[in-house]
Amino acid sequence: MRGSILNCPGRLTILLLPVYIVYIMEINITKPTLLLNSERVKRNIKRMADKALISGVNFRPHFKTHQSVYIAEFFKEESVSSITVSSLDMAVYFSRAGWKDISVAFPVNIKEIETINRLAGSANLHLLVESEETVSFLSNNLLFTVNIWIKIDVGSKRTGIDCRDFTAVKELARQISSSDKLRLMGLLTHAGHSYKAAGKEEVKNIYRDMVNKLYDLKDKLRDEGYDDIMLSVGDTPTCSLVADLSEVDEIRPGNFVFYDVTQVLIGSCTEEDIAVALACPVVAKHRDRMEIVVYGGAVHVSKDSVRLKDGTLIYGLTAFGNSSRVEDGWGRALKNSYVKSVSQEHGVIKLDKEYFDRIKIGDVIYILPVHSCLTANLMRSYTILNSGQVVDIRNV
Amino acid sequence: MRGSILNCPGRLTILLLPVYIVYIMEINITKPTLLLNSERVKRNIKRMADKALISGVNFRPHFKTHQSVYIAEFFKEESVSSITVSSLDMAVYFSRAGWKDISVAFPVNIKEIETINRLAGSANLHLLVESEETVSFLSNNLLFTVNIWIKIDVGSKRTGIDCRDFTAVKELARQISSSDKLRLMGLLTHAGHSYKAAGKEEVKNIYRDMVNKLYDLKDKLRDEGYDDIMLSVGDTPTCSLVADLSEVDEIRPGNFVFYDVTQVLIGSCTEEDIAVALACPVVAKHRDRMEIVVYGGAVHVSKDSVRLKDGTLIYGLTAFGNSSRVEDGWGRALKNSYVKSVSQEHGVIKLDKEYFDRIKIGDVIYILPVHSCLTANLMRSYTILNSGQVVDIRNV
Repeated sequence: MRGSILNCPGRLTILLLPVYIVYIMEINITKPTLLLNSERVKRNIKRMADKALISGVNFRPHFKTHQSVYIAEFFKEESVSSITVSSLDMAVYFSRAGWKDISVAFPVNIKEIETINRLAGSANLHLLVESEETVSFLSNNLLFTVNIWIKIDVGSKRTGIDCRDFTAVKELARQISSSDKLRLMGLLTHAGHSYKAAGKEEVKNIYRDMVNKLYDLKDKLRDEGYDDIMLSVGDTPTCSLVADLSEVDEIRPGNFVFYDVTQVLIGSCTEEDIAVALACPVVAKHRDRMEIVVYGGAVHVSKDSVRLKDGTLIYGLTAFGNSSRVEDGWGRALKNSYVKSVSQEHGVIKLDKEYFDRIKIGDVIYILPVHSCLTANLMRSYTILNSGQVVDIRNV
Repeated sequence: MRGSILNCPGRLTILLLPVYIVYIMEINITKPTLLLNSERVKRNIKRMADKALISGVNFRPHFKTHQSVYIAEFFKEESVSSITVSSLDMAVYFSRAGWKDISVAFPVNIKEIETINRLAGSANLHLLVESEETVSFLSNNLLFTVNIWIKIDVGSKRTGIDCRDFTAVKELARQISSSDKLRLMGLLTHAGHSYKAAGKEEVKNIYRDMVNKLYDLKDKLRDEGYDDIMLSVGDTPTCSLVADLSEVDEIRPGNFVFYDVTQVLIGSCTEEDIAVALACPVVAKHRDRMEIVVYGGAVHVSKDSVRLKDGTLIYGLTAFGNSSRVEDGWGRALKNSYVKSVSQEHGVIKLDKEYFDRIKIGDVIYILPVHSCLTANLMRSYTILNSGQVVDIRNV
């Protein structure tokens, strides 16, 4: 509009010399809105990138948490060029945005061979395998050479070859090496059990145990003639809490970009590292129960839950805004207060009396998510603090 | 392509006389796909519509479960014209599709007054209130008259005025009646605690208790001069299990359109009534644990869970296809088998040995969801059995 006025023929043309213009779009919360503190995001990325650099390991962040080419740009500022994703759809999305070194950290889904072949023709693709059937299928159906990691289970009992089963690992290494379409990269694991750790020491022990198990396999593989086996590890708790990661070759954390209440409880981060919060309008107050109801439920924050140290099951912590301006962000988590339950659109928040009395219907309260990956996936867009810019997530 | 050949100039034109053509598009499952059995959907709708008709109550189905104008059409076949939704966004979506009698079954969010006024200008809008602040705000800010229901809490402890607090109900009724923008319709409740009921008898008892509580309020309101108080109730378990609903004026069930594992466990339906299933490719097998891993996780089926009678926490039941053709649908739930855990894209399924041995990597297995509303909301599209047609969900 302004451009058209400036160029309007027959009118006085006003020349504006922009010496210092800050355009602040006011954020008006009318419904559940996922706010993103980009300074925290950048700080979280820089901290992890620095650690990877000092440890001398490749930093291949997992982009499943943010699923956004906008946030991906922040990683470029830290010279990141290799990434991890959790689906081929996500790989296609980031590949189109120019990312060309992509690990799909999910056991190969042979039903998507066409997508794999399309991607492998245009990107440096890394895939995970754990069975002879899948390796055999890839060997027979790949059109281009891809990088292959053997998925190892070090205790999370989700996917991967049990780390105690060297025979299976060796057989798979042999099978991979014998195919001209498969390039054996090494061993990859995700210590998912660290997300259930009770504290920092337990996380560090899980890391130590994981490294020992991987080195045991690596040593045995070397004895079989496999000299260049690399080790790739992934979970946010160990990558956050272990100071020196130099024993492995690559780290693939994802959640650290936003962190969340689960990570605060584990000890992976502090509350001030949480970079996303769901702003929710208050729609009801129940003084008899010291509870409020917000517009913000399972379809916004997700149905994921975690237990506080005292055993209380929660669906999020809560915070007030730092001021009446949404742009000023949210404050400290409210004590003795939490999201008690969520249904499709409702969130029921238990509040300390001190806070309950301060809240009016129509106010905005912030939910700090239990699991930021799932909240981001549901909300599908971020409203960036400071700029007010709204950024859409992967939409496939 | 075929059209262009038929019309190609200078070539022999072949005239096809379509006497009987059934065009079956083959459904090829390459990634998690939400299949919809439209016969079951129609049967579920007809059963509930018939019950409402026989009971002489208004049928105002909740559309938050399916969120689809396509499925909404099935309701028109049962002469449904009044609907319920859980957000104003959903109200706008269905209003644009021609639905003009809409209840928003969520406490009024005063931050969305502009949307409320826009909707109220074009549809017969029903809103829920439970506080004097909200009624006062509406009274001062509405541009058109809207229908108002007082939300009553009969035991679910989520929203609504506690049914024992007649003073608050009376005061709200007085306040509503004194505004020319508000038309008092009656009392509305959602017995959400029925979703935690252990069986049919408990559900029927919840219904009886709810009706008694509503009648108590209705009688007292009549004594105060409010003669036309209507009663609207909503949950799927009571509406499914109570044969005669004639004591109330309106029913608003939603989940019954698809049902799910939670409803089977409560006893609201049988397994053959579940109308949606998530088709998932198998990506890994773990014989030592009798577990398979599928592509299909928390971002597909949701993180909602339920306990089986024996206490096992599950994220879904499982089924095989009725044949190798996806179009033939899925079969009975597999015994001693269930979705044990879900992470972002992974589903870990515990299988009975008999079934484990039959499954190969690359096969498709079906997850019967714990909570179909959340699965539908995440998947955002349905693939219709028989036709293979893909129908998108509300996309706002």
